Amino acid sequence: MTTAVRAYAAHSPTSPLGLFKLDRRSPRADDVVIEILYCGVCHSDLHSVRNDWGNATYPLVPGHEIVGRVVEVGAEVTRFKTGDRVGVGCLVDSCRQCSACGKGWEQYCESGRVDTYNSVDRLDGRPTQGGYSEKIIVSDAFVLKLPDKLDLAGTAPLLCAGITTYSPLRHWKVGPGSKVAVVGLGGLGHMALKLARAMGAEVTLFTRSPGKEADARRLGAHRVVLSTDETQLDGVAGRFDLIIDTVPYVHDLNPYLPTLATGGTLVLVGYLGPLDPALNSAPLVLGRKAVAGSLIGGIAETQEMLDFCGLHGITSDTETIAIQDINEAYERLLRSDVKYRFVIDMASLKQEATV
Amino acid sequence: MTTAVRAYAAHSPTSPLGLFKLDRRSPRADDVVIEILYCGVCHSDLHSVRNDWGNATYPLVPGHEIVGRVVEVGAEVTRFKTGDRVGVGCLVDSCRQCSACGKGWEQYCESGRVDTYNSVDRLDGRPTQGGYSEKIIVSDAFVLKLPDKLDLAGTAPLLCAGITTYSPLRHWKVGPGSKVAVVGLGGLGHMALKLARAMGAEVTLFTRSPGKEADARRLGAHRVVLSTDETQLDGVAGRFDLIIDTVPYVHDLNPYLPTLATGGTLVLVGYLGPLDPALNSAPLVLGRKAVAGSLIGGIAETQEMLDFCGLHGITSDTETIAIQDINEAYERLLRSDVKYRFVIDMASLKQEATV
Ligand SMILES: [Zn+2]
Ligand SMILES: [Zn+2]
Ligand SMILES: [Zn+2]
Ligand SMILES: [Zn+2]
Repeated sequence: MTTAVRAYAAHSPTSPLGLFKLDRRSPRADDVVIEILYCGVCHSDLHSVRNDWGNATYPLVPGHEIVGRVVEVGAEVTRFKTGDRVGVGCLVDSCRQCSACGKGWEQYCESGRVDTYNSVDRLDGRPTQGGYSEKIIVSDAFVLKLPDKLDLAGTAPLLCAGITTYSPLRHWKVGPGSKVAVVGLGGLGHMALKLARAMGAEVTLFTRSPGKEADARRLGAHRVVLSTDETQLDGVAGRFDLIIDTVPYVHDLNPYLPTLATGGTLVLVGYLGPLDPALNSAPLVLGRKAVAGSLIGGIAETQEMLDFCGLHGITSDTETIAIQDINEAYERLLRSDVKYRFVIDMASLKQEATV
Repeated sequence: MTTAVRAYAAHSPTSPLGLFKLDRRSPRADDVVIEILYCGVCHSDLHSVRNDWGNATYPLVPGHEIVGRVVEVGAEVTRFKTGDRVGVGCLVDSCRQCSACGKGWEQYCESGRVDTYNSVDRLDGRPTQGGYSEKIIVSDAFVLKLPDKLDLAGTAPLLCAGITTYSPLRHWKVGPGSKVAVVGLGGLGHMALKLARAMGAEVTLFTRSPGKEADARRLGAHRVVLSTDETQLDGVAGRFDLIIDTVPYVHDLNPYLPTLATGGTLVLVGYLGPLDPALNSAPLVLGRKAVAGSLIGGIAETQEMLDFCGLHGITSDTETIAIQDINEAYERLLRSDVKYRFVIDMASLKQEATV
């Protein structure tokens, strides 16, 4: 028994997304059935649809910045009830038994996390499908409670862009007195500025675009450094305890290393692949510096991030689109032509023919 | 006023080391005059002599693993007296005022540490010259006390090889329950095995040479993994909290990253330069892993290391040579033909003609 819902799917790396009849499973005893109201558009959606990581299975329904309302709960669900405002991020399951899961690091599950889309359900072996759809059905342990006060559309991107930047800020203990820099001002970068500022850090944006200064300051940056200007780079030599590098494509890390303080860390959250040009180890050795990576966040940490955003009134800057505009939005995303996150208003899906 | 002492110096990147008349400064009020009894032979000596880092100034007297006895102290020196067994490592001064110096991280001094050789004295502007010499004169703040019980020749390499591996083990909080791997079994690697074992860690050696197993176990390894054997690498997937990579030349780090546990760090202590082949960031992001570097250690930490070695009876495995054998020893060092550190018996220098 499955339920057919309307969705948008890719059927190959090169075909545009289009209407798709998606069969959702019957709810299990621990499941929460969520009517999706908004879904953010993440760079990973585009990477997955175009098979940039070589692991795409089609048809593929992307979307892992999901907010909506509960319309049904399984018999064993006690934390959620019909009508609750809830969210689902990049994860819908994990083994729940390994040492990583035990620490609340479901994103690093040693048996393999279950992604919200392009992954495989642990019980029925069916492909998981994401938030570009009317409904999603998720085990209650992976459903997040949303703060009451926040705008729903602006809350959606917190589920990926928010937690992806919040987790390293917390892991590397950013707080008042910390000096943080953010590389790149896109969906991830603009969240990093807001979150680091709210944590009390001194915040700097590295950008290659001179035109971003006013916006960066509005979003929380105390300082903007043009990463193409050596004089400006020299002006922040040895300054940062943590650099959050959000750039999603290959780029040179070497210019940033001298701007780390002794013992500082540059953490990559956007780019997976070979570091080219070659990373030079000399600044690492000579200053006990590190280059690290970080992947989204665990479930408890995601809830903590949402609560933090509720307390500080933080949401994403968004541009709302209809699902019918998704292919054009992808083209604009590739040109970084969005301030700062596309969010799909799922009401638009109801205009499509019933599937 | 200077004092002429016998030393061995290089006069160019290609000429062999030979006898050199070295003028040591007149002792200042805070100076300790040390008769050098043994001096270890470090890879850095060879790199400096051959100008591998492009910053050598000649004549150059290498040597920064120095042990000896105090023969004279300046008027303000209270911590040392004639006859004391003392050591000098890689540092003879720093600014003593910056934030790094304030934390006891003189090796990362923001105004520039003063190396034991191939550096410049902060007061008189003269080149510093190292331990391949009869005497050295060093400000008391940079002189270390040696544990009574330890063999002097075996203690010399602790001043560089010892502290270079001790500092990252401490910084990354290795203790009972930690799982540590060491890459490379040379001067640094054999110290890392001994120190990590004494700290209570589970210790693994990565090596490319099958013949090193018995020696590695004698030195403290619980396990030896052939880094050229994929099956053996798979057997330690996700295992290590910390990998100390002591290899002094460019090499591929990518095979080691999957053997780090979630949140683990690979720390380079031997190689400064571009990472080739390119480091892949995917394992860093997918497991919150880091590649870091570490440089020797601070003065207080070096004293702590010496005291730790005194407590645990740890010295370096050494092969004692005469200063006249230094050029041949360099050739053997390049072939890794030493178990595990050459130490020069400075009595041999007295056979040379008075300078
Ligand atoms: Zn995402
Ligand atoms: Zn798990
Ligand atoms: Zn050395
Ligand atoms: Zn200093």
